[in-house]
Amino acid sequence: MTATAKPAYDELAATYKRIHHLEHLQSIASWDQAANMPAKGNEARAAALAEMCTLLHRLRTDPALGRHLAAADVEPLGDLEQANLREMRRLWQTDTALPEGLVQRRSLATSRCEHAWRRQRPANDWAGFAANLKEVVAVVREEAALLAERQGCSRYEALMGQYEPGLTTATVDRVFGELRQWLPGLIRQVVERQRRQPLVEPAGPFPVASQRELCKRVMHLLDFDFEAGRLDVSAHPFCGGVPEDVRMTTRFSEHEFLGALLGTVHETGHGRYEQNRPRELLGQPVSLARSMAIHESQSLCFEMQLGCHPGFVALLAPMISEAFGTQPAFEPANLQRLLTRVKPGLIRVDADEVSYAAHILLRYQIEKALIEGEIQIDDIPALWDEQMQALLGVDSRGNFKDGPMQDVHWPAGLFGYFPCYSLGAMYAAQWFATIRRATPDLDGRIAAGDLQPVFGWLHEHIWTQASRWPTDELVRRASGEPLNPAYLRTHLEARYLA
Amino acid sequence: MTATAKPAYDELAATYKRIHHLEHLQSIASWDQAANMPAKGNEARAAALAEMCTLLHRLRTDPALGRHLAAADVEPLGDLEQANLREMRRLWQTDTALPEGLVQRRSLATSRCEHAWRRQRPANDWAGFAANLKEVVAVVREEAALLAERQGCSRYEALMGQYEPGLTTATVDRVFGELRQWLPGLIRQVVERQRRQPLVEPAGPFPVASQRELCKRVMHLLDFDFEAGRLDVSAHPFCGGVPEDVRMTTRFSEHEFLGALLGTVHETGHGRYEQNRPRELLGQPVSLARSMAIHESQSLCFEMQLGCHPGFVALLAPMISEAFGTQPAFEPANLQRLLTRVKPGLIRVDADEVSYAAHILLRYQIEKALIEGEIQIDDIPALWDEQMQALLGVDSRGNFKDGPMQDVHWPAGLFGYFPCYSLGAMYAAQWFATIRRATPDLDGRIAAGDLQPVFGWLHEHIWTQASRWPTDELVRRASGEPLNPAYLRTHLEARYLA
Repeated sequence: MTATAKPAYDELAATYKRIHHLEHLQSIASWDQAANMPAKGNEARAAALAEMCTLLHRLRTDPALGRHLAAADVEPLGDLEQANLREMRRLWQTDTALPEGLVQRRSLATSRCEHAWRRQRPANDWAGFAANLKEVVAVVREEAALLAERQGCSRYEALMGQYEPGLTTATVDRVFGELRQWLPGLIRQVVERQRRQPLVEPAGPFPVASQRELCKRVMHLLDFDFEAGRLDVSAHPFCGGVPEDVRMTTRFSEHEFLGALLGTVHETGHGRYEQNRPRELLGQPVSLARSMAIHESQSLCFEMQLGCHPGFVALLAPMISEAFGTQPAFEPANLQRLLTRVKPGLIRVDADEVSYAAHILLRYQIEKALIEGEIQIDDIPALWDEQMQALLGVDSRGNFKDGPMQDVHWPAGLFGYFPCYSLGAMYAAQWFATIRRATPDLDGRIAAGDLQPVFGWLHEHIWTQASRWPTDELVRRASGEPLNPAYLRTHLEARYLA
Repeated sequence: MTATAKPAYDELAATYKRIHHLEHLQSIASWDQAANMPAKGNEARAAALAEMCTLLHRLRTDPALGRHLAAADVEPLGDLEQANLREMRRLWQTDTALPEGLVQRRSLATSRCEHAWRRQRPANDWAGFAANLKEVVAVVREEAALLAERQGCSRYEALMGQYEPGLTTATVDRVFGELRQWLPGLIRQVVERQRRQPLVEPAGPFPVASQRELCKRVMHLLDFDFEAGRLDVSAHPFCGGVPEDVRMTTRFSEHEFLGALLGTVHETGHGRYEQNRPRELLGQPVSLARSMAIHESQSLCFEMQLGCHPGFVALLAPMISEAFGTQPAFEPANLQRLLTRVKPGLIRVDADEVSYAAHILLRYQIEKALIEGEIQIDDIPALWDEQMQALLGVDSRGNFKDGPMQDVHWPAGLFGYFPCYSLGAMYAAQWFATIRRATPDLDGRIAAGDLQPVFGWLHEHIWTQASRWPTDELVRRASGEPLNPAYLRTHLEARYLA
């Protein structure tokens, strides 16, 4: 045996590599569950995945890891190893903060709530749902208190930190506060303006096989590596698998194709981030995607910044005509109008680029107050109705199923996640503004089918950086300044009011 | 906590349940590797599966298991628990017989040999292949010696025991000895007889989508539960997945459809065995399929006994016409002749029902002598040529790629497996003879599309029995007598000479 100058660090790295290999099987089995598994396989799959969760939790909380973390602190490490150690310590903090009993109670409460929600939502049964959600919130508040104590932050902050490490409510309050100033007015302005625009609807049906081929062609255009990934179908589209073998899913309807197409463009953004994380470090925490907000910034760079860019839409148009035959609706200018139509509505996942953020403002306000104990479950409907009216001018009264019951996040206990969607949109605008400074003829390059200025920049500044820096530093290094929501406003005004 | 009268047994059962859950993920990831995985995913998948192998090996050889096995011996157990304990002990014996160093050397040697074989086979490079195979045989001989010592049997017997527990070379020598007496003559007789039969070849192409639908229809006819399984495509067809979610694969060629169709019928036999193992015991060793010979007896019951039965072929004929349009070749009598055409040739996997066993006789003779040290690698080609001539009247000289290099078994180190194929054919004939005694109008029932006499019997006597009895006892309980190769002869003579 050769002596090593950093035995504790090496032990840590070996353990995380081992965890990474087991997580690989977990990822593929989870993807398979959504994309392939027949109904009767569910119970056995759930038991198998639960067994793996238990095993991984034990590996991640093994007391030996804690000792190695302490010992590695005084070992001679390079910069990258230091960054890796920082990320390991962060994961260790979170993984060991919660007693196993709480984890189990949380799992029971969210399973029960989510399972019942699938029936209660179509039945608009707010009272039934609220009873289960109270249990979920009770246990999530406990969880938040423990995490907050460990990390020395507020409870809601601690929950957000699971998805966006280091994010403070002060930051979110500031940027969402600004957003709230101008967003409702912008929505009204755009709606008013678009009322005068002519619009031709595409005429279906759109055969699923043609849609699938079209999606794959567009993924090729977006440089998705099909030798290291696949596109399949699942009820709820997602990007799963592993960096070496990314499993994207979408869903098709014969009546409409733009949803699947733009959804695929969105997931391709996630997919390329995963495919381009630093290969030589895979398995180490420093190689993980930085955060969910940064991840969302990639999918929104693809779907919104690039996917709805007039130059890119002009590249899509002939592909769409080849897939379904020529139609007046497929003229580039009309396609562009279809993709940028703003229609305030009840449902977040159906929202357009402009009004989407209003849904997030509303959820942030409610869930933060709920976790901090300032409001209770029974206060939600009135707050919801008031905010839907104030932000979007939409009447949601009595419609619980398309109101506070519409998302899986709360029944699943995923409080603190919602802000990442709009932070992602802000980061995406900030990245594109930076790319535009580096490549002044960006619009021309995109229109000419040259997407390299975009992909090259993301590759260098985001994808390969992975978790090397805390988010704030990653953002400053990439764009020269901290998170700045002004870029989103500028982008929206340029695209929707110019 | 409530006291239990059998704490050691309960611990064992819990451990095997845990192993079962982890094996579930291993199975699905392995199936995915063959059916879905893109090229660049291979390295990460191999590493993930290797990690799981290591983990499972540790769980299976945990010294605590050995202590519990000893302690459970004196606990008050029911019959089924006793049987389960017997199977646990058998697995423990095998799993702990080999030192980790040997397992690793074996894995290295077989990986190297199999990897090189994929190039060497097409190049007919016997010398290159032989050099690697020598290393494989050296390590397999070591393995066989350790297993033999542990089990008190001969070396080759010990290897066979991994696939067919308790099988002795005395038994195989006896039944294969009988086979050798009448098989070559029967082959010659059938070939001579079929020379006079008219035969119409199907005219292609046969679209893959139509073949896929046809295969699924036939799987439905065979009562495969599509809510607990799937049919997909892979380079080498197999039946994988888990009992609750069986993953069958096949492969299609536009030029020929009978191969994929009968291959699917074959795998469906494996699949239904898996789908019908006793559900309440899954995870426990007593619920595992009895052995590879018994498994093969199920696929051959489906493919040969049932699949080439004239009554069943008459059920297939209209489905085939619906898939590809009417052709004279699809007349039931002609289809039956196509499916039972006997053509001695070089390749085992392309062999017909009659000449297949000759390939196994040859391999058994060679690999048994090789493992026992009676011959060396360099002796194989001459022996091969001599036996191909004697058994099949085929000249194999100089054609190593379609001779001793044709199968993956030897480069992969799977010595002792080949006999299971022909034992499976014998058992399948024995099962059908038993079913026929219980249902004298079996031919009429099959022709009428009523396959219940077959499935009901297999369900009761084979599938749900799983590993409750040692093979010999399973066979006696099912058919009233031990393995009797006369049934295969009777079946072949009735089908091919009547």
